[in-house]
Amino acid sequence: MSDTGILTIISGFSGVGKGTLVKKLLENYDNYALSISATTRQMRVGEKDGESYFFLSKEEFENRIEKNDFLEYANYVGNYYGTPKSYVVEQLKQGKDVLLEIEIQGAMQVKKLMPEALTIFVMPPSANTLKDRLVGRGTEKKEVIEARLGRAVEESQGIENYDYILVNDDLEESTKRLNELISLAHDASFRNYNFINKIREELKVFRKEI
Amino acid sequence: MSDTGILTIISGFSGVGKGTLVKKLLENYDNYALSISATTRQMRVGEKDGESYFFLSKEEFENRIEKNDFLEYANYVGNYYGTPKSYVVEQLKQGKDVLLEIEIQGAMQVKKLMPEALTIFVMPPSANTLKDRLVGRGTEKKEVIEARLGRAVEESQGIENYDYILVNDDLEESTKRLNELISLAHDASFRNYNFINKIREELKVFRKEI
Repeated sequence: MSDTGILTIISGFSGVGKGTLVKKLLENYDNYALSISATTRQMRVGEKDGESYFFLSKEEFENRIEKNDFLEYANYVGNYYGTPKSYVVEQLKQGKDVLLEIEIQGAMQVKKLMPEALTIFVMPPSANTLKDRLVGRGTEKKEVIEARLGRAVEESQGIENYDYILVNDDLEESTKRLNELISLAHDASFRNYNFINKIREELKVFRKEI
Repeated sequence: MSDTGILTIISGFSGVGKGTLVKKLLENYDNYALSISATTRQMRVGEKDGESYFFLSKEEFENRIEKNDFLEYANYVGNYYGTPKSYVVEQLKQGKDVLLEIEIQGAMQVKKLMPEALTIFVMPPSANTLKDRLVGRGTEKKEVIEARLGRAVEESQGIENYDYILVNDDLEESTKRLNELISLAHDASFRNYNFINKIREELKVFRKEI
């Protein structure tokens, strides 16, 4: 229905495969665009500006902060990372459904600025599945596994703030389901006020013309 | 995901084909149950108690009103009509997705009592399509057409209160889409608190056990 794109915020547990899911969605359907982050960190070998990241100087980045051009940003270990708003808005206007893969704090910041965004949290089929993935082949140190499980517990806070959960059991199935979730979100009433009003006004005209 | 059924409230313009859509959904998928209304009007030839309606005496109906066993009810031309709550709740518990076809006032009453219900408004592809259906073959009196168009304008108020609109262009396509809307509603976070809590608690236990 609605012609404007939808911003979909995708979060989920580390190791749950949400990156692969997003990649698959971009491969299988052509109505999606990936939100590209901006950063002030050094470009690495193999990276390209505007693909992996938009690479900005510290000054440029802070200028954009001033101009409110970030949906969210943060500073990690001396480098800025953020989601440029103008890029996302431009893609949405062109009718692209924009995918933003981001952790929960960033997600909630974006949701505040764009409350119409769709939010999805990717889950494992069971805690056991996730544990197996995090523990790995048993060759990891106890501290590493402890840290990973601690992080998973942290990541599990606030799942209720997301619109939908998506259980990533089978990659093909989950990709299809993710696409359906976004596709059907276009039919939400609040995204179709123009269409609803148009029909309402036309019916009034017809009644007068009888 | 969630094992409990979902109550889906379906409204829409007269003549838009929502009855056919509901019938088709019940035919094509076996997870649905139709909400059956109760009434105090006389049973007609060919009707069966518990199929077309639950036929109640005035006393029985008023008893049930006292016991708050109606999701909504109204009195038309001396007869009561209502949606029995116990029947809907029983079907939902059994995991059935219950369909309730009802006009907007009734829909909003039900939504107040069961805010977790999914609400869908069936729309024509355009006002022109609806007009053509309402005007018919041009053999109707002006007053009849006027009344129908007036009703359509009335029905168009409050569409924004529904969760989704469903454009009924092609019956097969719309039936599929309606099924998807209800199927995906099962993945809404608020319908999966048990699953979310279970995973969260299990992860905490795993962390302690390391």
